[in-house]
Amino acid sequence: MLTPHEPLSTSILVMMYFGEVVFAVSGALTAARYRMDIVGYAMVGTVTGIGGGTIRDLLLGRTVWWTEDPTELLLCLTASLATFFFIRHDISHRKEMIWADALGLSVFGVVGCYISLQQGTPFVIAVFMGMITATGGGVIRDVLTNNVPMIISCGQPYATVALLGSLCYATLRYLEVPEIPSEAIACGA
Amino acid sequence: MLTPHEPLSTSILVMMYFGEVVFAVSGALTAARYRMDIVGYAMVGTVTGIGGGTIRDLLLGRTVWWTEDPTELLLCLTASLATFFFIRHDISHRKEMIWADALGLSVFGVVGCYISLQQGTPFVIAVFMGMITATGGGVIRDVLTNNVPMIISCGQPYATVALLGSLCYATLRYLEVPEIPSEAIACGA
Amino acid sequence: MLTPHEPLSTSILVMMYFGEVVFAVSGALTAARYRMDIVGYAMVGTVTGIGGGTIRDLLLGRTVWWTEDPTELLLCLTASLATFFFIRHDISHRKEMIWADALGLSVFGVVGCYISLQQGTPFVIAVFMGMITATGGGVIRDVLTNNVPMIISCGQPYATVALLGSLCYATLRYLEVPEIPSEAIACGA
Repeated sequence: MLTPHEPLSTSILVMMYFGEVVFAVSGALTAARYRMDIVGYAMVGTVTGIGGGTIRDLLLGRTVWWTEDPTELLLCLTASLATFFFIRHDISHRKEMIWADALGLSVFGVVGCYISLQQGTPFVIAVFMGMITATGGGVIRDVLTNNVPMIISCGQPYATVALLGSLCYATLRYLEVPEIPSEAIACGA
Repeated sequence: MLTPHEPLSTSILVMMYFGEVVFAVSGALTAARYRMDIVGYAMVGTVTGIGGGTIRDLLLGRTVWWTEDPTELLLCLTASLATFFFIRHDISHRKEMIWADALGLSVFGVVGCYISLQQGTPFVIAVFMGMITATGGGVIRDVLTNNVPMIISCGQPYATVALLGSLCYATLRYLEVPEIPSEAIACGA
Repeated sequence: MLTPHEPLSTSILVMMYFGEVVFAVSGALTAARYRMDIVGYAMVGTVTGIGGGTIRDLLLGRTVWWTEDPTELLLCLTASLATFFFIRHDISHRKEMIWADALGLSVFGVVGCYISLQQGTPFVIAVFMGMITATGGGVIRDVLTNNVPMIISCGQPYATVALLGSLCYATLRYLEVPEIPSEAIACGA
């Protein structure tokens, strides 16, 4: 294998799990919009959940984290299937979902930045990796469902949130500051 | 380079070559449907043939196998070009082709699972890697030709076959059992 | 990290920077055609500039070069933003741009081939890697903007140029011969 993993701090792990579930649900909701079957839900949801982190790990030459421990693969799969079985209405425009999405973006920005700094990359690269972690899953989701990725077609809110999450963390080297979710909801609204 | 390759058993190698040729032909037939030129045939065919295995190797942190030995690259290229020069009719709906496709899927599922176990991944991951090996090439093919990947839009037969191939192998740790191709044709029909 | 980088020769570095700027501008012009906002310009431009080399490095198991040194990321970003701010007309059909594009393709072919040979890959693989370096960025650009990649839909001129650049270099192991740009413009015209 490649670079062995240094252990992640608990707060980063919690954020990562949160982000993955949020994105898996958002991916599964996209599958719903295209009236896919259960396989489509599972695939699009899982890929959206773990896609951003996978791209980051590949680019950094890090072992892709979920290949060693199936927890997160199963977590995303469960979230996608739960969406398939339990969610009846399209909740992607509900206020809670927009909040969760925005929070997921900034959280993933922080996680990506944290991991990238841990690998010893320069500051600029770490911020960029934060953005990739945050937006990568969505880009793969949109490419698979044959859309122009939202980050590109109307990317300002997304990019801003992801960049802010990543940038704030990199500068403060500190846990998320409360401006980020507020900024996020401002953009999402 | 990364992890050095442990030698693959002959039966796995034969299965791999078979799968690659089948998928290269299937990719080239897709190129035919879009009336592409010879470059299109060669590219789409080759990418479909080696795409799934490439994604698997990248995710596992393994040296991408065809970068060390051009045999398989040339094999896929030859299969694609043979399709361009010799195949006059669209054979993608012929019974033999459906059989071959289904067999290719389950065979690739077994190969991916075998390699993944060889790398020491957990059971769940190995099954998942089998699925990725089997379906990855087709996903890339569909993304390149600007379609929603079949595994997502109507994925149940594909996913079932690939999953069965991978799962059977992982549980039996044994060569392909005869149920798989029959299951496959049942799905493909 | 993975294989440490051997230093690249200055002429290769100059070619690489040239190719990246040309492709970043070409990516940003594509963003212009889709009337994207500034984030779209920056993303599509940057991805087009560094995409081909990134795919090559991942496949070769080489550290993705721009994760260690932000120069080239910033270069592509600057080129994309300069296109956004300063270029008023669509210059993608101007003669200079076609020249630059063709030159960028063959230059990237040479760079990819050089790096691949440096990694000790066989001859055929090196030529193939040259092609991937040259065309990869454009493929990602087209997939992101939801098009069938040009290399596939009408790929002969592109593939020819990239292949020529790569092949000439591999055979001559020598700097670009003057036939390449002339061949290129012939195809582009």
